Amino acid sequence: MDSNKITVRVPGTSANCGPGFDCLGLAATIYNDLEMTLLEEEQLIIEAKGDGADTIPTDDKNIVWKSARMILERSGNGDRFKGGILRMENHIPMSRGLGSSAAAIVAGLVAANELVDKPFNRQELLKFATEIEGHPDNVAPAIFGGFTVSVVDKGQVQTFAFLPKIRLKLIVAVPDFPLSTRMARQVLPKSVPMKDAVFNIGRASMLVAALINGKERFLANAFDDALHQPYRTKLVPGMQEVFSAAKKAGALGVCLSGAGPCLIAFSAVDKHIENNIAVEMMQAFKKNNVQAGALILDLDTKGAYVLRG
Amino acid sequence: MDSNKITVRVPGTSANCGPGFDCLGLAATIYNDLEMTLLEEEQLIIEAKGDGADTIPTDDKNIVWKSARMILERSGNGDRFKGGILRMENHIPMSRGLGSSAAAIVAGLVAANELVDKPFNRQELLKFATEIEGHPDNVAPAIFGGFTVSVVDKGQVQTFAFLPKIRLKLIVAVPDFPLSTRMARQVLPKSVPMKDAVFNIGRASMLVAALINGKERFLANAFDDALHQPYRTKLVPGMQEVFSAAKKAGALGVCLSGAGPCLIAFSAVDKHIENNIAVEMMQAFKKNNVQAGALILDLDTKGAYVLRG
Repeated sequence: MDSNKITVRVPGTSANCGPGFDCLGLAATIYNDLEMTLLEEEQLIIEAKGDGADTIPTDDKNIVWKSARMILERSGNGDRFKGGILRMENHIPMSRGLGSSAAAIVAGLVAANELVDKPFNRQELLKFATEIEGHPDNVAPAIFGGFTVSVVDKGQVQTFAFLPKIRLKLIVAVPDFPLSTRMARQVLPKSVPMKDAVFNIGRASMLVAALINGKERFLANAFDDALHQPYRTKLVPGMQEVFSAAKKAGALGVCLSGAGPCLIAFSAVDKHIENNIAVEMMQAFKKNNVQAGALILDLDTKGAYVLRG
Repeated sequence: MDSNKITVRVPGTSANCGPGFDCLGLAATIYNDLEMTLLEEEQLIIEAKGDGADTIPTDDKNIVWKSARMILERSGNGDRFKGGILRMENHIPMSRGLGSSAAAIVAGLVAANELVDKPFNRQELLKFATEIEGHPDNVAPAIFGGFTVSVVDKGQVQTFAFLPKIRLKLIVAVPDFPLSTRMARQVLPKSVPMKDAVFNIGRASMLVAALINGKERFLANAFDDALHQPYRTKLVPGMQEVFSAAKKAGALGVCLSGAGPCLIAFSAVDKHIENNIAVEMMQAFKKNNVQAGALILDLDTKGAYVLRG
């Protein structure tokens, strides 16, 4: 590597995908860019543009920098590079359920890893990212792209990433209020009816099978969930109405994005239907006194990558 | 159809496959054959050879005949054919968790359907079979073959059947005692920890993804279960020891077959390993004072079919 400067691009992500609570995830074509320069001197400059830029810590509590530090230390470069210049351009909405914190972590890890000549592969980056984030749900698709199935077994993370044979559009309704994942966790019960567990096992399995094999007709109920969305309805006013409106407008399936408040509708590729779903979702939110924007995205197919290096 | 006589062959099946409680199933190369002749007169002759032959009802309470009657009545042939001659040759062990009752139902439905010129397709037969059996877990793979993902939504059954890209051997340890599904249901709790539900959702999704895409290394933990097998351990003495023995002998994964008491180990195709797993499973059962036989099977790839017609 000639230079100590690199720019990486990391996709926004959506965890759960309905029935795949704490297991499934996807990456979408909305990105945060990070330009990172490593410095030998102990100096830290952090600048951010875009969504939530003014709320981002600019000292060593910054999560991008903390993630970069992990790479430097674990690769034995902790003393070589003591400082850095981080310039971020963020498009992923913050605290909306689109994986902005996972994107920050993955950006820091991937950029630093590249700058010290890639001592770690993607599987190791996944391990580090999961260590920082606490779960692989968003960091896995941010690293690998596509859809991901993640399982944690005795502290080891395993992620299976795949691209579906069906081309899907993601219509994301983005409410104008944030929701903390911690609060969205607190409303969940510690135990659940066995029948609800079975409900989700069947649908998550069906979703994965239908996506991999490209069988659209099997998606009809495959995005449905009984384990977390019902409890979170009260945190996102109008959630059920927005779901109904999206389905009525032609969505193949609908779900809460991560812990919310974003809601995602999946549709076949059709400009008219996509736009119609977006409009109907925003209107249904408005009827519930929630201002919401809409994003029409594709599935990201490659995960975090080097934009300029 | 020139004749009123037909012979159908139906595979044994295994429900759950570990994490896919009440959702996943598979068909195996062990079969029951049914020769059915429909009679205009009200006469019923039922003969059975093979496993459990002496316990099978030979009057109109017989489940094969009841299933055949459903086809005759729903197709408007109830008055045309009032009786029948049923000759069964059964190889699927009874009440062992290998779908003997599902095989009986599917045999009756498929044979009668063929004899009245196939008014119903496989999807409709699945619906009827589920109505009789109460759930699709075994009847779905008995009809479609391969692995199946089944979901029941508002009374409608949907089954996705697929053949894995990995060729697997099924080593089945068959204990010498029966287990009623009703009793095996009674030991299950009505509610379960959320973390156990998440455990199974991830593994069931991983299992389906790994089988469809043929990625053996992702199978390592994919057959594990937290929702039903732990509660059923006490009903199958030695279950955990048999699991450990099979894994030690090279099994890729292990699980309880349906509600038990059969245990299944999955292995790559390798005569030496397959035999070794079978021996080790039987010995582990023996140490727990359970006499068990072993079957080394393949995945059945086509489901119920007409053998002679």
